[in-house]
Amino acid sequence: MYQLNENYQKLPGSYLFSTIAKKVAAFTEANPDKKVIRLGIGDVTQPLAPAIIEALHKAVDEMASAETFRGYAPDLGYDFLRNAIAEHDYKAKGCDISADEIFVSDGAKSDSANIQEIFGADCRIAVTDPVYPVYVDSNVMAGRCGDYNYDTQMWSRVIYMPCTKENGFAPAFPSETPDMIYLCFPNNPTGTTITKEQLQAWVDYANKNGSVILYDAAYEAYISEDNVAHSIYECEGAKTCAIELRSFSKNAGFTGVRLGFTVVPEELKCGDVSLHAMWARRHGTKFNGAPYIVQRAGEAVYSETGKAQLKEQVAYYMKNANTIKNGLQAAGYEVFGGVNAPYIWLKTPDGMTSWDFFDYLLEKANVVGTPGSGFGPSGEGYFRLTAFGSYENTVAALERIQAL
Amino acid sequence: MYQLNENYQKLPGSYLFSTIAKKVAAFTEANPDKKVIRLGIGDVTQPLAPAIIEALHKAVDEMASAETFRGYAPDLGYDFLRNAIAEHDYKAKGCDISADEIFVSDGAKSDSANIQEIFGADCRIAVTDPVYPVYVDSNVMAGRCGDYNYDTQMWSRVIYMPCTKENGFAPAFPSETPDMIYLCFPNNPTGTTITKEQLQAWVDYANKNGSVILYDAAYEAYISEDNVAHSIYECEGAKTCAIELRSFSKNAGFTGVRLGFTVVPEELKCGDVSLHAMWARRHGTKFNGAPYIVQRAGEAVYSETGKAQLKEQVAYYMKNANTIKNGLQAAGYEVFGGVNAPYIWLKTPDGMTSWDFFDYLLEKANVVGTPGSGFGPSGEGYFRLTAFGSYENTVAALERIQAL
Repeated sequence: MYQLNENYQKLPGSYLFSTIAKKVAAFTEANPDKKVIRLGIGDVTQPLAPAIIEALHKAVDEMASAETFRGYAPDLGYDFLRNAIAEHDYKAKGCDISADEIFVSDGAKSDSANIQEIFGADCRIAVTDPVYPVYVDSNVMAGRCGDYNYDTQMWSRVIYMPCTKENGFAPAFPSETPDMIYLCFPNNPTGTTITKEQLQAWVDYANKNGSVILYDAAYEAYISEDNVAHSIYECEGAKTCAIELRSFSKNAGFTGVRLGFTVVPEELKCGDVSLHAMWARRHGTKFNGAPYIVQRAGEAVYSETGKAQLKEQVAYYMKNANTIKNGLQAAGYEVFGGVNAPYIWLKTPDGMTSWDFFDYLLEKANVVGTPGSGFGPSGEGYFRLTAFGSYENTVAALERIQAL
Repeated sequence: MYQLNENYQKLPGSYLFSTIAKKVAAFTEANPDKKVIRLGIGDVTQPLAPAIIEALHKAVDEMASAETFRGYAPDLGYDFLRNAIAEHDYKAKGCDISADEIFVSDGAKSDSANIQEIFGADCRIAVTDPVYPVYVDSNVMAGRCGDYNYDTQMWSRVIYMPCTKENGFAPAFPSETPDMIYLCFPNNPTGTTITKEQLQAWVDYANKNGSVILYDAAYEAYISEDNVAHSIYECEGAKTCAIELRSFSKNAGFTGVRLGFTVVPEELKCGDVSLHAMWARRHGTKFNGAPYIVQRAGEAVYSETGKAQLKEQVAYYMKNANTIKNGLQAAGYEVFGGVNAPYIWLKTPDGMTSWDFFDYLLEKANVVGTPGSGFGPSGEGYFRLTAFGSYENTVAALERIQAL
């Protein structure tokens, strides 16, 4: 009889968003007259920018004629997109990353889950706590995380780096040396970030200790402060120790369009072995390219018109972030994030647990957020609100919270 | 220092199509006046059907307005598409497969490479020889294949099932019992298939021996004969032993659009563990849904207009297949496939190797095909031509071959 991957059985249920959905459904059934405002899930709500819509229509028309039809895309992405990314996301920001080092994909979630495949089965991973669950779960599936302790909510082989208000949400170097270090700045879920100097210290740490950094920069478009790096390759020495994961989901509203990319520098080697070559082989074997029409939409993100329109879109969401942040502070809450990221992380009042506060906010203000404990044990006592709703809903939600 | 996945280093270079590209480039440079006709790679050339173009434009317009904008898709696919698939691909053909058992993805290549993840590391795989390389390579990366022997071109832990003219390209049950059996019918690369009774025997074998069948039915739309199954679920007992992989690439010209799906029946269990639940968890963790606009394009494939237009498209390619098959036979070649699949598999004349014949055809007829030996040792002495070119090029290529 065939056997299954036993690591899957170790995974605890993924109940965070389904529990939220159930609680909200029960509440709306019991209170059909109440209008619930959802500021929970990190999904965008604004339509695609006109420049992107135009590029999509144009590419669709190309697919309608034999002369301009496109079949299989190059595994690693069309040159028109890889060149645009290299030019605008890297060269324009002083990072020496070439188009050949950019791997276009169907999104950062896939990439952040798949990237662990090229590493050894015994590698130990380090993650910030709280954390985006995909980093850990994908490593559990590969057998790297040991066993789950339901009491501590921790995996025996994972190195956790707590990020709380006590350390300013900046992870300290762990006491055990990790092989693979997952960092996400600006951070999901806390909405906080670290300075360029702090990031440089992580690059130096990785180069010194023989670790690789898997750097998730999905929220870089929301950075408003000068001393925050948009890319890890702004740091000296990053090309010998870091892979960067990037997304079009939040900066261009592509959550339902699906496009992302990963940068694996040519210089990144473990002994003689090139990680760039390994990731290219992985793409060539297990992926067949992102859709042509979607890659053309991605190209439009970098056009002058596209950039102007998306700057407005980001500003729209950051106005929401500001509304939430100021509104919560006015109501007496202790609030973090929301300056360089579309997430606001608040300390629950009066020692409430994250889930107690969830129930309280749903029942009293009819507002849905995400309990911080759902992202890891150090998220207990915190709560996430997102800036991705409409401005009208965001204002209304904050008025309700302030009236509590 | 972190370690890498050592299995990647075991993979021999993937030189088939790059070697072909180099040889063709060298030839065209030396012979700029010669017009080369490419019947090598299995990529489609006809534009998307009008019903699909219309659906794409409509979905793009929906993304342009906040009222109809769609963010993250359901991980497993939109109901409108899963329902259409269940209705038209299964219920209409007498197969008891529900929408819940269908997992929409970005294509069959990804699925056929990823599906091995849910199985144990010690499972032994069986493949037909010749074979689509992704099945083997994805298992090599997971460490299931042992070591590669450059002389025999075989992996030490892979069970090979030769498919040659001697056995009518129908694999025999192997002497060792495999855990995972990869079957693809109609077959790539041979273009041949097996009868429904022969497939039933494989289902019975798997149920009896505790094997799981990974059934690739990417070419089912090209089936013209009555006694050939379009889905493995036409066979009794398949729901307890088989996963089916399906594609929109060849039946609807989606090679550059990217859409596929995998069927994992609820009844498929290993002991108490549901493979359906595992695949759902894999999708939920490592994938974020196919693009909304692409799923709407997929839905259009099943509309009455779409079905009529795609029937014509398939007929266009099968007219090419017939042209190649008849043309080769008239020229004295021994030819297989091309009746239920868009591939023609020919025996090389005079004991030529596959690569000798490649050079011969390129130099004498300026026609590019694919050497059979590139798909496995039992492909030596065979050669693949595809029906995916234009009709005009196909006719011209055959005239040249007949004139040799």
